Amino acid sequence: MEIILNPIGRIESRVDDKRDDDWGGVTAEIILDSAQFTEDALAGLKDFSHVEVIFQFHRAADADTHFAHRHPRGNTDWPKVGIFAQRGKDRPNHLGATVCKIVAVQGFTVKVRGLDAFDGTPVLDLKPVMREFVPERNEIGQPDWATELMKKYF
Amino acid sequence: MEIILNPIGRIESRVDDKRDDDWGGVTAEIILDSAQFTEDALAGLKDFSHVEVIFQFHRAADADTHFAHRHPRGNTDWPKVGIFAQRGKDRPNHLGATVCKIVAVQGFTVKVRGLDAFDGTPVLDLKPVMREFVPERNEIGQPDWATELMKKYF
Repeated sequence: MEIILNPIGRIESRVDDKRDDDWGGVTAEIILDSAQFTEDALAGLKDFSHVEVIFQFHRAADADTHFAHRHPRGNTDWPKVGIFAQRGKDRPNHLGATVCKIVAVQGFTVKVRGLDAFDGTPVLDLKPVMREFVPERNEIGQPDWATELMKKYF
Repeated sequence: MEIILNPIGRIESRVDDKRDDDWGGVTAEIILDSAQFTEDALAGLKDFSHVEVIFQFHRAADADTHFAHRHPRGNTDWPKVGIFAQRGKDRPNHLGATVCKIVAVQGFTVKVRGLDAFDGTPVLDLKPVMREFVPERNEIGQPDWATELMKKYF
């Protein structure tokens, strides 16, 4: 069973290198596809502080997709974990999902901060972040390797 | 440009009606596709407290997809907002993304609480929730209609 999706827009960003870390200060723009939508599709989004961006890591090669467990980022100080216990790009379906701060919404453009994706990335969905969908940070448990990996990420 | 995805598994749940609210107490199981993966793909997931489930609202009909703004749930007490300022199922690509509490991980099965999807829903990805990817709840701003809509949701 295949699921066929159509990008709703694309990301414009100055980040087009192989950056792994330091995404927190990056400002990017999501440009909605004006052939499919009107500006109405974004009406009301500016009343939210955060948006979740669902995108596809379009430069990730199928041949690199991991199916079994491995050390995150190849770091042998960290345990081998399965691809569904990691958030890296080399995953089945290559989907990314990141909550970003909304900087501005204007016309077909959503300007955001903290989007960990390269220039040209296809966007599949935008969802407003509602408080009730987010666990309290202090309720979130995670292993030490994840905390260490995330230290420089944003 | 089309993007073709393959489900990585499916949801098993007792919820197969048209439920809109009260998802918080629902326990569901995500069954990974054993034809594509080994149990290794889930290794280490149990060390996280929460998982984000990316799925497709498979019963949503393309004909019902909204492209312009509308009142959420048809409630005229609420303002008209665009589909990308709502999280409902009648959206382009019909993607859902929900953070759930992990109850257990065993074999090919992830048991979770709070997954707002029906029995049989195809799953496209599982991502461990890392604290650093989640804003503090008190940093999240949202309009009053969203707070009201969410009162009975979980």
